[in-house]
Amino acid sequence: MLSRSSTICLKRALSTISKCHISSLKRLNNSLVLPSSVTDVNGWVKSVRVLKNIAFIDLSDGTTMNSVKVVIPLKNTETDTIDSEVLEHLKKFKTGQSITIKHADLELTPHREQKYELKVNKPISDLSILGDVSENYALQKKYQSLPYLRSNPILKHRTTYLGSLMKFRSQFDFALNKFFNLEDYTKIAAPVLTANDCEGAGELFKVESKNYLDDENKNGMSYFGSSTYLTVSAQLHLEILALALSKCWSVTPCFRAEESDTNRHLSEFWMLEAEMCFTKNITDLTTFVKAMLQYSVKECYDNFNELIPNNAPEGCLSKEKVKERWDLLLNDSSWSSITYTEAIKLLKIQHSKIPFPKYVPRWGEALQTEHEKWLAETCFKGPVFVTDYPSETKSFYMKLNKDEKTVACFDLLLPEIGEIVGGSLREESFEKLSDAIHKRGINKNGDLDWYLELRKEGTVPHGGFGLGLERIILYLYGNYNIRDSIPFYRAAKSKISL
Amino acid sequence: MLSRSSTICLKRALSTISKCHISSLKRLNNSLVLPSSVTDVNGWVKSVRVLKNIAFIDLSDGTTMNSVKVVIPLKNTETDTIDSEVLEHLKKFKTGQSITIKHADLELTPHREQKYELKVNKPISDLSILGDVSENYALQKKYQSLPYLRSNPILKHRTTYLGSLMKFRSQFDFALNKFFNLEDYTKIAAPVLTANDCEGAGELFKVESKNYLDDENKNGMSYFGSSTYLTVSAQLHLEILALALSKCWSVTPCFRAEESDTNRHLSEFWMLEAEMCFTKNITDLTTFVKAMLQYSVKECYDNFNELIPNNAPEGCLSKEKVKERWDLLLNDSSWSSITYTEAIKLLKIQHSKIPFPKYVPRWGEALQTEHEKWLAETCFKGPVFVTDYPSETKSFYMKLNKDEKTVACFDLLLPEIGEIVGGSLREESFEKLSDAIHKRGINKNGDLDWYLELRKEGTVPHGGFGLGLERIILYLYGNYNIRDSIPFYRAAKSKISL
Repeated sequence: MLSRSSTICLKRALSTISKCHISSLKRLNNSLVLPSSVTDVNGWVKSVRVLKNIAFIDLSDGTTMNSVKVVIPLKNTETDTIDSEVLEHLKKFKTGQSITIKHADLELTPHREQKYELKVNKPISDLSILGDVSENYALQKKYQSLPYLRSNPILKHRTTYLGSLMKFRSQFDFALNKFFNLEDYTKIAAPVLTANDCEGAGELFKVESKNYLDDENKNGMSYFGSSTYLTVSAQLHLEILALALSKCWSVTPCFRAEESDTNRHLSEFWMLEAEMCFTKNITDLTTFVKAMLQYSVKECYDNFNELIPNNAPEGCLSKEKVKERWDLLLNDSSWSSITYTEAIKLLKIQHSKIPFPKYVPRWGEALQTEHEKWLAETCFKGPVFVTDYPSETKSFYMKLNKDEKTVACFDLLLPEIGEIVGGSLREESFEKLSDAIHKRGINKNGDLDWYLELRKEGTVPHGGFGLGLERIILYLYGNYNIRDSIPFYRAAKSKISL
Repeated sequence: MLSRSSTICLKRALSTISKCHISSLKRLNNSLVLPSSVTDVNGWVKSVRVLKNIAFIDLSDGTTMNSVKVVIPLKNTETDTIDSEVLEHLKKFKTGQSITIKHADLELTPHREQKYELKVNKPISDLSILGDVSENYALQKKYQSLPYLRSNPILKHRTTYLGSLMKFRSQFDFALNKFFNLEDYTKIAAPVLTANDCEGAGELFKVESKNYLDDENKNGMSYFGSSTYLTVSAQLHLEILALALSKCWSVTPCFRAEESDTNRHLSEFWMLEAEMCFTKNITDLTTFVKAMLQYSVKECYDNFNELIPNNAPEGCLSKEKVKERWDLLLNDSSWSSITYTEAIKLLKIQHSKIPFPKYVPRWGEALQTEHEKWLAETCFKGPVFVTDYPSETKSFYMKLNKDEKTVACFDLLLPEIGEIVGGSLREESFEKLSDAIHKRGINKNGDLDWYLELRKEGTVPHGGFGLGLERIILYLYGNYNIRDSIPFYRAAKSKISL
């Protein structure tokens, strides 16, 4: 039940910490005691309807999922006739404009989803336009497809679906920060500029000072004295910090000059990476990853209705399906773990019954997306850790198992999407790591000498993992295309216009 | 007072959320009930002292400020003679090695700073080396200078001063996350790759796919179809999001191909930026900035002794002086605010008494560091907001004041360091912004058309600010050189080796 105080100024009543004089609809919605009237309410017009005796404006300031209904009576109460001046005034209002309401009565609407509406009795003085829109404002009320919205990066975040996606990403990020803080991890600002190619995939972006490139006198010289690239992973640097502080994590932009132009690849993406020392086995990592995801989802669950919209665009997951995904992650008994070798056995049996469309499962080869999806979706019907892959299918830094064929690593596979987290124990022995590097023919110019050196100075068993933020956001929010998981996507064959 | 439980396994007893089987000394220190013995304690040797009857190892796993004392009796209790086998075993231990303790008794030391020490009674079976160190391990116990440590990026974070700096940065970052979450700001992953030069300073890094550069068939083509740069600021993109969600912030790496090789400049640095809509005046911003800094410092204050080391290297601030800086920020009455015009008057009076060494203060010119320091340090003896600078000294996007000479902006100056935050209201009028852009002769190739366009579609009064994270960390931790505020610095004339 809501009690009511007398008229208060929204901007004064609703500020908490910063004593900042700026109101928001979220603050108003969340206030335990709703005032009987408010001043200085701002936002953007979602829609306008002018009826015979009354007009409605749906107003949103982007801080809440649902807009607030603004009611404007058109009748002059004294004369009981339509006030033509008011009617003229109302005709100026259009979708997309920013407006300000100087004063409105707050009327409770206990039987509706929105617990109140705002009534503006003096629209001529109290309701005015802050910023107009152009004739062909792109976000008219009708439905816009995501491909269309993607082509309009300056306005697309004003839609409920894409705006809420940004807010969900923000809340999920905060939940991760809370988790790692509770677990005593130190957050590291890993470098973007690096001399290394961590994964050895070679899809690097090269960086040079524009002045150096433009200046003929520089004669091909380099700002940093040698070739510099954008990082593909913070892992190697994070290992340095882990071997000093035991437990570290980072959330940094990573870059891959992919040629794949798909709904699953980005050239610039944000990666969460963590490294921990004194690991005993791969279970130290998988236990942690499961706890991290469950904690973060649980934190967001409390605000599920405020984070996930009621309606999803074509091709995106409905709210009900999103809830199913969250529940699946929270349910302990839905989680499984098998070795790669066991997984291949299961895949082979399945293949003998119903062949996989593209790839025959074979020990020694990477699992393909169709295999990963079958394992998580059909076979285990939930998140599944696949561990101990053949050494040749994985990166040079992974710790060799006693069988000398497989490495102590894992991929976390989720239904409908496949791999979401990848991690491993790191080879901590100088000799074994040297061997692995030598066998693969990498480090020919000594790039990785410092990484090897780390194994000579108080090396310890350690391990870690990486989680692509845009992919987990995609999974948890249900948006189909990874390009919508980040505010301004950079991908193969897409021009950067801003 | 500490009560004691019976022997428990550290790894089981001290894990909380993740049920992760990895212990840490921080968890042990913070446990309300200290166990009488512990198993599986790991860390790095800080120092070893072998005395006549007893040996001491100072052990740190990097999770706490102070190391834990490990006590090893050398006498065989049965024969009451020195156990030569134990003595031989102890001779293997050296500074920098990683070691593991299988079992130790935890003995309370109520009269010392450290509340307990670990006693290893069976060192031969229970104390062993995980990873050895090379002969010339760089971090012997003696004092190392910061320039020396900077030359050793793979080991430097194992020192108390630089390791603690990373932990302080992490805690400060978390406090900021909490603040912005409480204030309902949406955290935005602003793009690193951009077509724009926000500040127009021209010190850009250009980015290209390595494959495109190496492949002659690509014939000078570009991966993204046109020139792409590393961002110098997230502001312009953040304004897009603010005009959708009202309140946004971001923490992203920013890049400037500076030629200045000083202790205050980095080529890659992290910037916190925030944008808020529906601002009335510059006080909306300064009130918020003050609250943000006070909240974050207060959050860290609770752990002051765990965050700030007792000893600082040469040239860095002592713990007492650090505390003075924090107290200054927390004290409301130490904060001031003046306009640029007032500041120039004060500076001129001062200059007529004691001339500034390098620059004569003149209205219409930028404040120089010597002016900024005098204002904050000598004149106001505390943080001071200087507002309303002449339009020509500031960026094109700032909102013109009614006097048409100054812009609605502020710099926050701090004693001993000068400018730490800069912000402004943004020009929201399409016409005025077009004028400003035209006058400055920028946007000749239409780069900023999208930014102008934003003023045509529901524009609102808004503003924001930027805070260089490495500079505020430097101020609050007291390290003299900004290169130590970030784990791996990238600066003018410094080679990137990893």
